[in-house]
Amino acid sequence: MTAANETKAILDRLGVAPAAWGGAMPTRSPIDGSTAGPVVETPNVDAVIARSVEAFHAWKRVPAPRRGELVRLLGEELRASKEDLARVVTLEAGKIVSEGLGEVQEMIDICDFAVGLSRQLYGLTLASERPGHHMRETWQPLGPVLVISAFNFPVAVWAWNACLALVCGDPVIWKPSEKTPLTALATQAIFDRALARFEDAPEGLSQVVIGGREAGEALASDPRVPLVSATGSTRMGRAVAQTVAARLGRSLLELGGNNAMVVTPSADLEMAVRAIAFSAVGTAGQRCTTLRRLLVHESVADALVARLKKAYETLPIGDPREAGTLIGPLIDEASAQGFDAALKQAVEQGGEIVVGGARVERDGVYVTPAIVRMPAQTAVVEHETFAPILYVLTWSDFDDAVAMQNAVPQGLSSCVFTDSVREAEQFLSAWGSDCGIANVNIGPSGAEIGGAFGGEKDTGGGRESGSDAWKAYMRRQTQTVNFSRNLPLAQGVKFDV
Amino acid sequence: MTAANETKAILDRLGVAPAAWGGAMPTRSPIDGSTAGPVVETPNVDAVIARSVEAFHAWKRVPAPRRGELVRLLGEELRASKEDLARVVTLEAGKIVSEGLGEVQEMIDICDFAVGLSRQLYGLTLASERPGHHMRETWQPLGPVLVISAFNFPVAVWAWNACLALVCGDPVIWKPSEKTPLTALATQAIFDRALARFEDAPEGLSQVVIGGREAGEALASDPRVPLVSATGSTRMGRAVAQTVAARLGRSLLELGGNNAMVVTPSADLEMAVRAIAFSAVGTAGQRCTTLRRLLVHESVADALVARLKKAYETLPIGDPREAGTLIGPLIDEASAQGFDAALKQAVEQGGEIVVGGARVERDGVYVTPAIVRMPAQTAVVEHETFAPILYVLTWSDFDDAVAMQNAVPQGLSSCVFTDSVREAEQFLSAWGSDCGIANVNIGPSGAEIGGAFGGEKDTGGGRESGSDAWKAYMRRQTQTVNFSRNLPLAQGVKFDV
Amino acid sequence: MTAANETKAILDRLGVAPAAWGGAMPTRSPIDGSTAGPVVETPNVDAVIARSVEAFHAWKRVPAPRRGELVRLLGEELRASKEDLARVVTLEAGKIVSEGLGEVQEMIDICDFAVGLSRQLYGLTLASERPGHHMRETWQPLGPVLVISAFNFPVAVWAWNACLALVCGDPVIWKPSEKTPLTALATQAIFDRALARFEDAPEGLSQVVIGGREAGEALASDPRVPLVSATGSTRMGRAVAQTVAARLGRSLLELGGNNAMVVTPSADLEMAVRAIAFSAVGTAGQRCTTLRRLLVHESVADALVARLKKAYETLPIGDPREAGTLIGPLIDEASAQGFDAALKQAVEQGGEIVVGGARVERDGVYVTPAIVRMPAQTAVVEHETFAPILYVLTWSDFDDAVAMQNAVPQGLSSCVFTDSVREAEQFLSAWGSDCGIANVNIGPSGAEIGGAFGGEKDTGGGRESGSDAWKAYMRRQTQTVNFSRNLPLAQGVKFDV
Amino acid sequence: MTAANETKAILDRLGVAPAAWGGAMPTRSPIDGSTAGPVVETPNVDAVIARSVEAFHAWKRVPAPRRGELVRLLGEELRASKEDLARVVTLEAGKIVSEGLGEVQEMIDICDFAVGLSRQLYGLTLASERPGHHMRETWQPLGPVLVISAFNFPVAVWAWNACLALVCGDPVIWKPSEKTPLTALATQAIFDRALARFEDAPEGLSQVVIGGREAGEALASDPRVPLVSATGSTRMGRAVAQTVAARLGRSLLELGGNNAMVVTPSADLEMAVRAIAFSAVGTAGQRCTTLRRLLVHESVADALVARLKKAYETLPIGDPREAGTLIGPLIDEASAQGFDAALKQAVEQGGEIVVGGARVERDGVYVTPAIVRMPAQTAVVEHETFAPILYVLTWSDFDDAVAMQNAVPQGLSSCVFTDSVREAEQFLSAWGSDCGIANVNIGPSGAEIGGAFGGEKDTGGGRESGSDAWKAYMRRQTQTVNFSRNLPLAQGVKFDV
Repeated sequence: MTAANETKAILDRLGVAPAAWGGAMPTRSPIDGSTAGPVVETPNVDAVIARSVEAFHAWKRVPAPRRGELVRLLGEELRASKEDLARVVTLEAGKIVSEGLGEVQEMIDICDFAVGLSRQLYGLTLASERPGHHMRETWQPLGPVLVISAFNFPVAVWAWNACLALVCGDPVIWKPSEKTPLTALATQAIFDRALARFEDAPEGLSQVVIGGREAGEALASDPRVPLVSATGSTRMGRAVAQTVAARLGRSLLELGGNNAMVVTPSADLEMAVRAIAFSAVGTAGQRCTTLRRLLVHESVADALVARLKKAYETLPIGDPREAGTLIGPLIDEASAQGFDAALKQAVEQGGEIVVGGARVERDGVYVTPAIVRMPAQTAVVEHETFAPILYVLTWSDFDDAVAMQNAVPQGLSSCVFTDSVREAEQFLSAWGSDCGIANVNIGPSGAEIGGAFGGEKDTGGGRESGSDAWKAYMRRQTQTVNFSRNLPLAQGVKFDV
Repeated sequence: MTAANETKAILDRLGVAPAAWGGAMPTRSPIDGSTAGPVVETPNVDAVIARSVEAFHAWKRVPAPRRGELVRLLGEELRASKEDLARVVTLEAGKIVSEGLGEVQEMIDICDFAVGLSRQLYGLTLASERPGHHMRETWQPLGPVLVISAFNFPVAVWAWNACLALVCGDPVIWKPSEKTPLTALATQAIFDRALARFEDAPEGLSQVVIGGREAGEALASDPRVPLVSATGSTRMGRAVAQTVAARLGRSLLELGGNNAMVVTPSADLEMAVRAIAFSAVGTAGQRCTTLRRLLVHESVADALVARLKKAYETLPIGDPREAGTLIGPLIDEASAQGFDAALKQAVEQGGEIVVGGARVERDGVYVTPAIVRMPAQTAVVEHETFAPILYVLTWSDFDDAVAMQNAVPQGLSSCVFTDSVREAEQFLSAWGSDCGIANVNIGPSGAEIGGAFGGEKDTGGGRESGSDAWKAYMRRQTQTVNFSRNLPLAQGVKFDV
Repeated sequence: MTAANETKAILDRLGVAPAAWGGAMPTRSPIDGSTAGPVVETPNVDAVIARSVEAFHAWKRVPAPRRGELVRLLGEELRASKEDLARVVTLEAGKIVSEGLGEVQEMIDICDFAVGLSRQLYGLTLASERPGHHMRETWQPLGPVLVISAFNFPVAVWAWNACLALVCGDPVIWKPSEKTPLTALATQAIFDRALARFEDAPEGLSQVVIGGREAGEALASDPRVPLVSATGSTRMGRAVAQTVAARLGRSLLELGGNNAMVVTPSADLEMAVRAIAFSAVGTAGQRCTTLRRLLVHESVADALVARLKKAYETLPIGDPREAGTLIGPLIDEASAQGFDAALKQAVEQGGEIVVGGARVERDGVYVTPAIVRMPAQTAVVEHETFAPILYVLTWSDFDDAVAMQNAVPQGLSSCVFTDSVREAEQFLSAWGSDCGIANVNIGPSGAEIGGAFGGEKDTGGGRESGSDAWKAYMRRQTQTVNFSRNLPLAQGVKFDV
Repeated sequence: MTAANETKAILDRLGVAPAAWGGAMPTRSPIDGSTAGPVVETPNVDAVIARSVEAFHAWKRVPAPRRGELVRLLGEELRASKEDLARVVTLEAGKIVSEGLGEVQEMIDICDFAVGLSRQLYGLTLASERPGHHMRETWQPLGPVLVISAFNFPVAVWAWNACLALVCGDPVIWKPSEKTPLTALATQAIFDRALARFEDAPEGLSQVVIGGREAGEALASDPRVPLVSATGSTRMGRAVAQTVAARLGRSLLELGGNNAMVVTPSADLEMAVRAIAFSAVGTAGQRCTTLRRLLVHESVADALVARLKKAYETLPIGDPREAGTLIGPLIDEASAQGFDAALKQAVEQGGEIVVGGARVERDGVYVTPAIVRMPAQTAVVEHETFAPILYVLTWSDFDDAVAMQNAVPQGLSSCVFTDSVREAEQFLSAWGSDCGIANVNIGPSGAEIGGAFGGEKDTGGGRESGSDAWKAYMRRQTQTVNFSRNLPLAQGVKFDV
């Protein structure tokens, strides 16, 4: 069966309306290039926002634990449709089965987490300096949240944002990648089931906008949308940031990564090899946390590269639906051209291709993941090419390794493989990695939802998912109540009229 | 003695170098228009940033409690020079003595607070889903912080930012208002005393940039400055926000306010009158938290306005250095023109001037604070005029009062005077005030440093001072350590090479 | 059908083993005095503890989010068996249907909350004063937790403790009230279903000990049980506290309450009447948070008492299974004797019975709830009689009302009915109510699980359920890692060998 | 000059009243056995408590930041008198100069920390499940706090408790060790200076009770004292715990430690030797965190012991006032007898004394610190002998080392010396050390005040100093405000009268 046909069958089963089909927005499976046919673009973005604002005024009055109940029901529905939704992810984004399931599991996890949050959303009570005064800080709902997501995590990123936003009292408007509208429609259908069981939610609590760049810009520039949470390239993020800044809105950006692993002499090489392979070639190198730079101590570099070469040579590449496949397709031909071009530049800049780098002949766009030894961190290494290329560099002093890790514009994820307390803790210190994520004896990829996810510098500075990332979806209000019969001023100021 | 001469004597005493004088940047006291003479503009902004980056690399390695010791010493020096510095504030910004002292007290308070923080800067340890894994979140120093401050809080805003930044491991670059360079130089001299006692701080830990708009732009656009904390007008903030967004930096904005007080029938009117007078005319109406809109229940409006009129008629206006003065000068002639123009528009838009609105004849620019009854929230009311104009409007239903409070572009401070639990708590609820600050039986002005300070919408969204505002000055890092012999993937993903 | 027969049928359906029946521990329904027959006492308490210790060593190594999954499954099973379990509560504890359902809902709520916690259990990372040092605080599993519960919340109290304990990594040993062993067996059967779905939990993760006082003492005095969480009378709690203190264990005590409501002139009397009725007669006055003292401003006392009298006169008393019944039976004859005796003392101490105070003729033990006006807070008023008696006292000054509220040995729950901000906030201030719970315009009864539940003074000081109550179930460890090559001592101590 | 004469001179200088002298409580310097003469016992403990209760009612109404100002002044006074007070510590407790200064520095540090806390004392605002309800948690002052301190930290322990208590709104009653009344009087004199500058503190805010065991018991059993914070032996703590439990009060216990260091093959032995020496012989082995058990991997044990032997042989023992001295006297002859007896038992139980164990001939009681190799963790090793004896044991498997560390009744402090991430993190994990403190590459002794200090099992479970230890000094109140016109019950319970 073509990927397109399979997709269509699942969407029918999930309840995506027939009316969704037949528009002007093309769809395509990277697995075999087949298309389920175009879908309808959202006709009226302004009306979407208006509905969201309406929904906000109702939803913000619903107690947060009750809002959490909707998210709990969503979690139940996701559990029930886990295999279906994961399959759509595989079909439309080209992920292998295990990764598709993992992505839906991440949605489920964030549901559980958000349900717990719904009885927290903790602000503070604080000690006031004035007698007979009570001071506290409360987090209030913010308003409609725009979620712009990328093709490579076509459903999890929405869930990270939507589950927090909904619990925080905010409606959601979702602008999915133009490359993955179908996963968005599938997710919306599942969400609608939860909504039906919840019964009294306002209209328009979560809406999908199918559309292109103009739709995204119209949404991002609208002052009725206080928060724009955007995942994608640094270029896109820079544009969104300025658009939102011009109206003094709030941005939450998850942009490019250029993630490194430092390997030291005390590293467990067996574990390192497995971590590198998954981090560098998983999702065909198309994760924002994909390992792109391998910084190895000179004493172990040759041995490590040799083992990697061997592992790479037997990587099963092909239809991600098939059991055993580890490497699926690139999302499209443009990606493959970027892959080719980067390898060419790498060689021009002194690099030596150790393994991989070729196209695989079959329907869809498939390549063999590449390892390239580089003499230095040249321009191509500093750039994020969204494809499976791993640059290998060496070092002799650990301080230099940390400096190399930090010497790129991006700041998402990083890791060190070592059994040395001194090296590990230095890597995690104020003079260690400058990324938002730093791991020890784990690859850069695959965060748990309990921690805050995001990075610094050109990665955009946003944080999603766990810890207190929910605060981005709320408005903080500092509240002081005078219950005395006097009017003392702070800082002892006197002003008697 | 002219204000200028007095200023100069204090700056000498505080140790401001003679070389600071004689440049191209004019200075002027609003009290009498006298000038202590121009000061030197900072010649090389690029070098300032370079020094700050250097300082960062040393300072981030200094343990935070040791960094706190510098701030503690600063607090001691501020206590020792409190009257001098407060006097310079009076002389250069025109504040009355008590407000000048209050502003320095605020600096001292934030020192104490920051010293306490220096042993906290709490991140989290978190429960990991993977066996043999340890997960934590650590807050790391961020880098040079640019502080852009306004004339009306010429020293406190620097202290709010600098004390937190220094404790967080960040050097500070201060671009004060062009209208108040002398308070900046005085503060820097006091900081230098603390630095001398501290002994081993790096060069360039806190630098002042005397200069105009170009200097500010050069600083704000530089990618070596990860955080720009700017206080001032919404117009300025919008420009800064876009400049910083273009390089994916971080902004902390404290912009305009258009702060309202809702007065309900159960309010203690005696207290309300005093709160209104201080909030509306203190600092000659030039606080960002100045009360600008008085929303009174129709049943008490006439009585309240009558009492206010009486109070306004006897307000002591004049040289802020003199005991008893409550209203000092406006900062400059442009302010007075704004005052005049706004009153004119208000009348055109249906307003009736109840009291005030005239110029006071003397050196410097002085006006009589105005109360204007308005038929509705017209355009002029929605605009922040930085001068002592209080618009009075009435309502009959509390929900409408809250809606009126929220129906302006700004979102800084707000308050309600009431003894009703229902009204007070509604005002503080998710469907109450949409401001960053909401008070009950307190004016909108005069926050304690323990709470987060800032506002929403056109106010810019930043938070300074207390609560967890320090997080804006740090970089969050999510850290996971695998100390097992296995490599489990999050969300149960399987990927075996 | 007799209550006993109905109970037995439900227990069969839930899967309680036939072997549980036929022992020496009598059972009895307060509804009609019928008995489902005695159950078997746990033969070997020592073995129970040993199994729990074994389970601990396995369970503490299971990642907390995985432990949370067990609690999530428990929540699902409770949802599935909600009506059955609620019915057993009604049958064995005599609660009306709505209250039985509410109690099971509370179990479900705490499951959701605990699942959220399972990815948190937040400790801190802290700023160290020593260079090259990393400091953090981690919360570790503690060990077996003994839960001693009372008849009046025969299942919720277990859930409050067990859900937190399980997520925190602690096995649970449950010693239910001798009056409600059957609800414990029913709950355990439901827990076993969750356990079966979870698959790999250790044996003995949650065990029920059916037995009397000796069993409780054997458990409480055992040093292998680091935490004893006991709910019940102050007399019992005092004994447990000393037993546990003798071995330096940890107690979490929820003991007697003597809860008051202050009614002020601005109170909404209509709401107050409804709140009083529920709080004073719900669960036939047998909640630890039951309203026992009504402290009314003298100006509204007569009117309020008259309305209450009217409401009391029509209270539907009878079989709690029947729709419409609001007052079910007392738990046993001893309770009724306490009721009679207290009323007799109240009259002797100057009280006047306004309404109620009689026995109701039917099977089981039923009384008519009483209101007694007292001239002062005499000895009987200071004592918690576990039955529906409401003492009414008056005051004229609000400070006196607060003092009266505080002038009893217990410190569990309290409330004020007022629309005055000043009164409400004073009640909640440092010089207000001295209880662990203080409400405004809500009765003292019926807490949400998101807040910490418990009280001060003779109430025992423990806190269960929400907020950071989970910390009682864990061990805090302060951890400092030196990753430098030096050994600086804290506080600058020098000690060079 | 005799130690006694020097002490007396300093106390005069600090302003200890002449009336303090001449009572029935003997004083004595362990340095040379000289006595400054007896001091007066506090005549009326009941009056002390009554004053404290009075002080509480005033102090709890003082805003916490203002209370913090008193602690800030105390910090200033301690800085001013640091050398004097440290000298009294040396003279009366026998600590070397650097340790005396370090102890006063610890007082100063906790002052700074507590001042910061005084604007925090953070409770929570929480999401309520009921519409129109606001829920929060506030921490309220608790009441008089009794501090029972031991001779070995004669002033720091008071400061840890008093600074937090005072900021939290609680008066303090201090019962110092009978062996160190003079440091208490000196501290009180310094506190009085701060009090004089503060001006408006209530009488009796901090009182010293000079007395013996009966005084301590009278204080500990009094129900007007809600919190007893006791530092000392496990025997004492057990008694206090039961006394306080009998009246349902709150105990904060810091009792015995039996602290171990695990040394693994990857340890930096040079650092380990220095850490061991300081931890094992500092304060002549009389710290609660003194290193008592050295658990060394068999491959490095001989080398390590040889290096330690060499270091021990040249330890400078003598008058702690002299520069260069590292080991001062034991506190009294009873301590030395305990030292002798423990060594005798150790030999009987198979131990071999490697070095030390002798008396040093001079005035006062001095011994040479001992190292004893033990074949196993015998009875004497499980017991805390408060003198400088270090037991050395070996292991071959790291799991066994952790098990040995945990196999004693006490649970205060522990550490591992290793450069292995796996070993370090296992030691800090849920299946690692069971102590309240666990360090990596640091000895067990010398905590920073920013972390919580205390331990588990027979150490008593209390936590003092940093993190959220302040919560022990306050009363938590869960507060819910209904500002709606409805009365929804939690958990959806229906109860309509």
